[in-house]
Amino acid sequence: MMSTCIDTLSVEGRFDFFNSFDNVLTDCDGVLWIDNNILPGATQVMNGFKNNNKNISFVTNSNTKTRAQLLEKFLLLGFLSSINDVISSGFLAARYLKDNLDPSKQVYVIGSPALSNELNALNVKHFGVGEDYLNTSVSEFVDKVKLESNVGAVLVGFDDYFSYPKLFKAASYLKDQNVLFLATNMDEVFPIASNSNIIMPATGSLVIPVKVSAGRDPFVIGKPSTYICDFLTENNKIDPSRTLMIGDRCSTDIVFGKRCGFKTLLVFTGVNSLKDVEEWNKSDDPTLQELVPDYYAEGIDSLKAIFPVPL
Amino acid sequence: MMSTCIDTLSVEGRFDFFNSFDNVLTDCDGVLWIDNNILPGATQVMNGFKNNNKNISFVTNSNTKTRAQLLEKFLLLGFLSSINDVISSGFLAARYLKDNLDPSKQVYVIGSPALSNELNALNVKHFGVGEDYLNTSVSEFVDKVKLESNVGAVLVGFDDYFSYPKLFKAASYLKDQNVLFLATNMDEVFPIASNSNIIMPATGSLVIPVKVSAGRDPFVIGKPSTYICDFLTENNKIDPSRTLMIGDRCSTDIVFGKRCGFKTLLVFTGVNSLKDVEEWNKSDDPTLQELVPDYYAEGIDSLKAIFPVPL
Repeated sequence: MMSTCIDTLSVEGRFDFFNSFDNVLTDCDGVLWIDNNILPGATQVMNGFKNNNKNISFVTNSNTKTRAQLLEKFLLLGFLSSINDVISSGFLAARYLKDNLDPSKQVYVIGSPALSNELNALNVKHFGVGEDYLNTSVSEFVDKVKLESNVGAVLVGFDDYFSYPKLFKAASYLKDQNVLFLATNMDEVFPIASNSNIIMPATGSLVIPVKVSAGRDPFVIGKPSTYICDFLTENNKIDPSRTLMIGDRCSTDIVFGKRCGFKTLLVFTGVNSLKDVEEWNKSDDPTLQELVPDYYAEGIDSLKAIFPVPL
Repeated sequence: MMSTCIDTLSVEGRFDFFNSFDNVLTDCDGVLWIDNNILPGATQVMNGFKNNNKNISFVTNSNTKTRAQLLEKFLLLGFLSSINDVISSGFLAARYLKDNLDPSKQVYVIGSPALSNELNALNVKHFGVGEDYLNTSVSEFVDKVKLESNVGAVLVGFDDYFSYPKLFKAASYLKDQNVLFLATNMDEVFPIASNSNIIMPATGSLVIPVKVSAGRDPFVIGKPSTYICDFLTENNKIDPSRTLMIGDRCSTDIVFGKRCGFKTLLVFTGVNSLKDVEEWNKSDDPTLQELVPDYYAEGIDSLKAIFPVPL
């Protein structure tokens, strides 16, 4: 089905669209801001939703900031929000482990201090965060390494200090098939300005060496995994059919929204363009069709037009 | 086609088999030795081939020892061999770059001092080997990083000091599509005793994060890539149809041999068993059929029986 451009909706169409959802989930980077520059209309539109009694959730695959740190940023930028509106892959990973791991077991973590804080907040026992660099030869390291007992899960997020010893330990703990394997998310690279000459590998690029050396697939917490939806339907009692997901990256945001049964809206201020959508639309490949959003708009600013009372 | 067990050959069959090849290529770990324990018959059989005027080549995906260091091991263990009999993925990577890289360009290397030595031996300009750990936050590192100019290739081998800065640099250099992307080999893990509780990630597990973050596929030097065959036919003038490849791991050794047009022989002293071969044989899947060797034997010791004059 072809996507609908928000700008082409009639007055009634806009009214119907606005009334078709009670919950708004939005991605952050590429939708609300780029790097630290807020995008036009972002706070007005999101605060407008809140003032019109829509539930809003900021859904991010970030796992290097705690929910509290993320909330601080939202408030600073002028978004009306509370801690429960912030859904990060780091927070949800801790939540998943709280719900699914035997509390006598500990988690081996490749990840950030923020991820450690999220685990601490839910009393999930864990270790591994921080520097773990090789200070001997690999063969001596392998001979002398002491693996901890009582490990019930391996969690991989983004880690500044990713190293061979960390990769070795994660893979080795996962040799025991009873040990859970969790990844915060699978984004391979961070978004970078298109004129940049760098590539900034992200969490997915640290998960994949663990995956191939252990020969196991992780349970993925972040978008496009639907675990977030399970969490939101259970905790926030949201009705998927009355939910709108806004994003800039189809392979995560839009696929996530469609898999959850949400309405999906793509903005062109981030990763994907109208050209991408038009190409996928022409394709017969169902994996490409899954990338096509229900709606699209130039940017979040365009959504001002759907409000019954002007913002 | 079903594989032939060496033991079931008639006297004439053994004679015909022995005379059907002039060149013997063999994998090392799992065929000639396990860890540092030489396997029964290994030196007698390989020296026997040499004494019967067969050309022998030790073909290894190793890239953390130089050819000279590998030769030293062969000689110490009692193999009649010279430097030209040793074909390692590290040596061949250097050779490939010598032949294919503009000599005014330099190579960014994730790899070992031995790999650096192989590059030095052929005067291939390179940098990157050694510790490169993060000593600031990732964002500060990214802000301040200076990428070298004049990089013509990225080469990834096994590296004790694999780290986020190395991954970042490799991916960023590869953003320029003119930069060659080379991997010594794609073996995901090192062979480990089956009763061990560890997994030891190998070169392939370090190549794959570079591959996914750069969004590019490497040119692979080691088995099962056929570059080794191109090298041997050109340099050693071997005739593939008169060549026997012996190995213990079908996904590298046997697939390599078959893709090169060699005869292939599997021994059961390493990774794969007769049960594996029987299962693949039953399958209709061509990728599984490709794993089936022409011949098999319990171990290299069994090959004593094919010699016309007893060893």
